[in-house]
Amino acid sequence: MRTLTELGEAAKKAERILSVASKEKRNEALCAIAKGLIEDSKTIVEANALDLKFGRENGLTAALLDRLKLDEKRIEGIANSVLDVVNLPDPLMRVLSENTLKNGLVIKKVSVPIGVVAVIFEARPNVTADSAALCIKSGNTVILRGGKEAINSNKAIAASMRKALKSVSLPEDCICLVEDTTRESAKGLMCLNGYVDVLIPRGGKGLIESVVKNSTVPVIETGAGTCHTYVDKSADTDMATKIIFNAKVQRPSVCNACECMLIHRDIAEKALPKIAKELLDANVEIRGDEKVCEIIRQANPACDDDWGREYNDYIIAARVVDDIDCAIEHIYRYGTMHSECIVTNDKEAAQYFMNNVDAAAVYVNASTRFTDGGEFGLGAEIGISTQKLHARGPLGLNELTSMKYLVYGEGQVRG
Amino acid sequence: MRTLTELGEAAKKAERILSVASKEKRNEALCAIAKGLIEDSKTIVEANALDLKFGRENGLTAALLDRLKLDEKRIEGIANSVLDVVNLPDPLMRVLSENTLKNGLVIKKVSVPIGVVAVIFEARPNVTADSAALCIKSGNTVILRGGKEAINSNKAIAASMRKALKSVSLPEDCICLVEDTTRESAKGLMCLNGYVDVLIPRGGKGLIESVVKNSTVPVIETGAGTCHTYVDKSADTDMATKIIFNAKVQRPSVCNACECMLIHRDIAEKALPKIAKELLDANVEIRGDEKVCEIIRQANPACDDDWGREYNDYIIAARVVDDIDCAIEHIYRYGTMHSECIVTNDKEAAQYFMNNVDAAAVYVNASTRFTDGGEFGLGAEIGISTQKLHARGPLGLNELTSMKYLVYGEGQVRG
Repeated sequence: MRTLTELGEAAKKAERILSVASKEKRNEALCAIAKGLIEDSKTIVEANALDLKFGRENGLTAALLDRLKLDEKRIEGIANSVLDVVNLPDPLMRVLSENTLKNGLVIKKVSVPIGVVAVIFEARPNVTADSAALCIKSGNTVILRGGKEAINSNKAIAASMRKALKSVSLPEDCICLVEDTTRESAKGLMCLNGYVDVLIPRGGKGLIESVVKNSTVPVIETGAGTCHTYVDKSADTDMATKIIFNAKVQRPSVCNACECMLIHRDIAEKALPKIAKELLDANVEIRGDEKVCEIIRQANPACDDDWGREYNDYIIAARVVDDIDCAIEHIYRYGTMHSECIVTNDKEAAQYFMNNVDAAAVYVNASTRFTDGGEFGLGAEIGISTQKLHARGPLGLNELTSMKYLVYGEGQVRG
Repeated sequence: MRTLTELGEAAKKAERILSVASKEKRNEALCAIAKGLIEDSKTIVEANALDLKFGRENGLTAALLDRLKLDEKRIEGIANSVLDVVNLPDPLMRVLSENTLKNGLVIKKVSVPIGVVAVIFEARPNVTADSAALCIKSGNTVILRGGKEAINSNKAIAASMRKALKSVSLPEDCICLVEDTTRESAKGLMCLNGYVDVLIPRGGKGLIESVVKNSTVPVIETGAGTCHTYVDKSADTDMATKIIFNAKVQRPSVCNACECMLIHRDIAEKALPKIAKELLDANVEIRGDEKVCEIIRQANPACDDDWGREYNDYIIAARVVDDIDCAIEHIYRYGTMHSECIVTNDKEAAQYFMNNVDAAAVYVNASTRFTDGGEFGLGAEIGISTQKLHARGPLGLNELTSMKYLVYGEGQVRG
């Protein structure tokens, strides 16, 4: 088993070759990876069976076991996702700006790979192939460090992908897997300065907090989403109902789901019963402040911990607010700068909300569930950034690039 | 004296007002700051005299004392730099992308302030006003932490600027100064998560390394520059001479100065004497490998430490290389990914060098001294990024912004 430093060196070395590989070569690698995953699916399913066995022995919940499980059909799905990346536009050597100075120097800013991308993730083995595909396409090598629950699956998937790289004459080390799944290996990766150009955590709040706290390498913080929907006094109540219902119920386990609704007091008596009916019919628990509980007798009283909480479940917090500023204040205090929405028919209120709410995505009159690389038209994504440097919102291929100035002269010197 | 957390809270609170201030208001603040600095120049010069007195008592070199010194003329220069920023284009609310999805959602990506920018810098008091001006213009509040050598000057400058902010009805805390100049205050700032959105160190290698190693807040690494100029076998030797002379001698103390020349062996006997003569005439010491010393008898032998060294002085390392790949390998091993140059008449070699050298700026046939916000046409700069995330090369106003997706709907929900 290679040490982290050895893995870092190997990934850096491979990066020098991958970073200058043509887009045809990178796409060829992705096609070989997809084909290889299908060919190796029996081996991968066998390895996955071991993880499932240990998972059952260690009392993983049925939901977690389901996320962990791979069968031939799921592997086909993973392979197809890899093929989808082939068809996305090449993110490299895009001309980001170009100008000619008075002295004749031509300065072009172009996109280049970031270098070595490290990804720390939890139980889902599909992340292994998804992340690797996006990194290869963008000319980055990747160091993957998955959770111990999926280690056998991850090893099998990584071995298959490395074999595919070799088959198209690219270094196997374009994809490196950290086989040590102890906490020490995660912390080591967070401090692998000089080798890791960016670390992206994919997982729950605990993982992300640990990465932010412990990393000395550059990090793109992702994921945690406590999203709010504010129903303004001028809102169409049917539209508000439809949007909140979708944002909460369509897929409650994800980061762009709505966790809290804020209702303007002037519209609360009219809007809340409609919204609550739909939610309650779908077995959503409503945890409301005093005023909400007065209007909706089926609501449970919220406690302080309910504000800012990411339920990822069929639960929603609800508060009646005095005005738009109170809504903005609540979001400032409890939001995670992910996705925030106002439902309103007042254009000025919409603009005011958009200007004053600081989040990756601010919506007027639409479900926060749209914050997603696929929905936004970026193709696949490697996560959703909730930080403000480098990239914000869905991280697609362009967000996996850095830049470089190319300066063309004819002997110019500085005066 | 406020604690760091109190300063962080104050800067965050001010940021919510500044981030939505109009460009007219931000420019008004800059004009007031420039005017205030002139009006307060007597007070600032008096405070500076204290720093100079302590500096002399503590044995600061003449060069450092000169960098520290402020007089009315220098303060006028600082004020004029602030006014220059007024005339730069507004970096906020630029539309970075816009698209309409099939479902009718309109998605605009616009530039917004980063939030709270912390700057840790060393002895130069002009950095206080320069950094603050760029931050205010880009809607960011700033926490400044200068060195102890300039604390009295920095206090006077910060007080003047804060007064100016108040005079235009913006919060004084848009500009916060850390008055505690102990190491603990620097380290505290590096870990002020939740308040500091980005930390930019401006100073020498030791400061930058400490910031990278100790920070848990996001950092933009700046500055350290070991730049190379490679003279290809097809180079015009006169052009090579002119470029290397300029890159070394025009201002040796800065990060984009050339620290090492690499000469193709086929051209070494022809090019080296010419280049060396100019450098030696300007009292530049040449530290060469064996082959260089064979050709140039006035050269001193280089030791291992000379490769990759940032002299910031009238010294240059020199090596004869077998081919372009050896030059690229040397730069990979010893460079700091700042600015690298090839002098060549061979277009293929130029392209190969540009593709394979990974640096903020890669030059063909021009002096590396051009890597500078002013020269590149960005207006002023707050530093030169040598990292790969967020921004690379000169950090101008646009690089001091983040982004936000604005999503305009009419009731769309996800299917």
